[in-house]
Amino acid sequence: MSAPSPGLDRFHAVIPAGGVGSRLWPLSRAGAPKFLHPLSGSGESLLRDTWQRVAPLSGEGRILVVTGRAHADAVREQLPELDDANLVLEDEPRESSAAIGLAAAILVRREPDVIVGSFHADHVIRGVAAFGQAVRQAVAVADAGYIATIGVPPTEPATGFGYIRATSALADVPGVLQVDSFVEKPDLETAIGYLATGDYLWNAGMFVSRADVLLERMRIEQPDLVAGLEELAAVWDTDARDEAVARIWPALPKIAIDYSVAEPAAAAGRLAVVPGRFTWHDVGDFATIARLGAAGRPNQLVTLGDADQVIADDSSGLVVASGGRLVSLIGLRDVVVVDTEDALLVTTTEHAQRVKQTVEAIKEQGRSQLL
Amino acid sequence: MSAPSPGLDRFHAVIPAGGVGSRLWPLSRAGAPKFLHPLSGSGESLLRDTWQRVAPLSGEGRILVVTGRAHADAVREQLPELDDANLVLEDEPRESSAAIGLAAAILVRREPDVIVGSFHADHVIRGVAAFGQAVRQAVAVADAGYIATIGVPPTEPATGFGYIRATSALADVPGVLQVDSFVEKPDLETAIGYLATGDYLWNAGMFVSRADVLLERMRIEQPDLVAGLEELAAVWDTDARDEAVARIWPALPKIAIDYSVAEPAAAAGRLAVVPGRFTWHDVGDFATIARLGAAGRPNQLVTLGDADQVIADDSSGLVVASGGRLVSLIGLRDVVVVDTEDALLVTTTEHAQRVKQTVEAIKEQGRSQLL
Repeated sequence: MSAPSPGLDRFHAVIPAGGVGSRLWPLSRAGAPKFLHPLSGSGESLLRDTWQRVAPLSGEGRILVVTGRAHADAVREQLPELDDANLVLEDEPRESSAAIGLAAAILVRREPDVIVGSFHADHVIRGVAAFGQAVRQAVAVADAGYIATIGVPPTEPATGFGYIRATSALADVPGVLQVDSFVEKPDLETAIGYLATGDYLWNAGMFVSRADVLLERMRIEQPDLVAGLEELAAVWDTDARDEAVARIWPALPKIAIDYSVAEPAAAAGRLAVVPGRFTWHDVGDFATIARLGAAGRPNQLVTLGDADQVIADDSSGLVVASGGRLVSLIGLRDVVVVDTEDALLVTTTEHAQRVKQTVEAIKEQGRSQLL
Repeated sequence: MSAPSPGLDRFHAVIPAGGVGSRLWPLSRAGAPKFLHPLSGSGESLLRDTWQRVAPLSGEGRILVVTGRAHADAVREQLPELDDANLVLEDEPRESSAAIGLAAAILVRREPDVIVGSFHADHVIRGVAAFGQAVRQAVAVADAGYIATIGVPPTEPATGFGYIRATSALADVPGVLQVDSFVEKPDLETAIGYLATGDYLWNAGMFVSRADVLLERMRIEQPDLVAGLEELAAVWDTDARDEAVARIWPALPKIAIDYSVAEPAAAAGRLAVVPGRFTWHDVGDFATIARLGAAGRPNQLVTLGDADQVIADDSSGLVVASGGRLVSLIGLRDVVVVDTEDALLVTTTEHAQRVKQTVEAIKEQGRSQLL
């Protein structure tokens, strides 16, 4: 684990933990978003999985978590090792540029030559060694002054992910590619084409960069945003923090880091991509969770939550038993049953994407307390 | 309703309310059996439906309910009109001969020439006028000294019901047949044959008879049982009841009235059957409830319980919302979802019969508190 890697001693992980995940209702809620749930099959929450994946690389004292104030206690409970100085609480969500940029601005003040790596709190990764190898490589690339991302070689023509086009090797680092461009979620035909060329990787939303490089790149596109973030960072570890947050945070531009940093850096030839040889999912819906859990075994019933509460007879799919009640399934193929204390979802893996429409219907009925 | 009918002024209805209905778990429980649930679509419990069906024939003061002591309060709540003198509570279930025989023995002491009609508390009947007509006819036949049953002309080769074979008309009452024999639940091939001959009716378990005739018939087969019932009846309306119940009831033979009365009466040529021109179901499983509720409309989602709690998108089958929670269904065909406070069942109408096996599994797991 601790083989010397250029820059790794200056590496600091950032975990932005946000996003409700409405296609995972009724499990994922405004008050208990996706990253707090044990959806990977490890028995741990996705946030805890993420922590355990990055801690061997950065060290436990060098992980900063950015999340909503409402989730502070839940995050502390999931990550008892997290130093409170490394828990950055947002009063309201202001998108990934503000979240990651603030983390970079805070860290660069604490440690000027820090290299930051940003990793979503709600992704599922299988192949921890390969993940570690990719991060080390990305850190080395970042140490050389690039902004690095980690892309995942696609295994199927997925239409739910963005793609990274990368056709040429980075001059000075073997195995690493220079990013030509980012492309939005394609339709199926386009995705099949991407897969055929071999020139595309899935965009897993992981960025590794020197903090100062990241902020300078962001400043070109979003000078006001970076000015605000630096003003916040200057007082972050002082008594003046709350006043500054109240004044500055609500006025910051809301923009995804893809637009403020990644795409412009790619256009300027400064974005490198490390192909990650691990299995990666962003767990967007219950069908993905069922597929992940079944791990290729046919007619599998994947159980999350309290397995003792499930009595299944000749059934396949996914059951999430979080309602504290007995859940009995008989003779169901590819079913999705998600049982929680105040709401129950029954559907099939085929229709898992339609959960979003149900969430809309619940909103329209004025029952947002269930969301 | 009150056209003069021979014997109707001496008619008294008996409703034996027992039987858990384990294929209707988790709705039907030991503590809240089938007859207490609103399964017919009327919005009322099956027990209340039964009461409302017989009350116009007998009068509200002339209905006697026999049920387990554990259900006394629930029955009183369902039937506020029920006089406590007409609520017969069993300390433990001892089968239909004891339940109906005790009712007959009590009533014949109160009113020697009473005609009793016994009607299950958990059947669904559509066509109240035809039901009333059949009961009046059965009462007239009973007044002539026969034991009468009401049979239902089969509309399909059901394998879940017993049948009554009746090939000859009763000499003195037009439209009424003499019962040749009772036959057990047939296999499908046999049931198809029954339907083809036109000689068979479904056994709906309704018996109408003079109380004294019923008891004399029962005494031939079960003299000890009838002696015990008469000893109980003699003190029923006195302070000595509890002592007598404690002494006599637990020792009474357990036998279905089919064997103690109906079959021997048929063999002796003393059992008449009135064909009932109404729709009848014994609501044995959730598939039956779904079919009843859909009433022939295709792709219908039948909702019982709290319909406000159901959000359904493109689904058919049956949903019972009794858990006080939101139930959301997406893209399911012929599903059965039964949501209660402490247990959830998800299956399909095709597999509704297999609920019984789940109940067995729960028993084996030592979780009988859920049954």
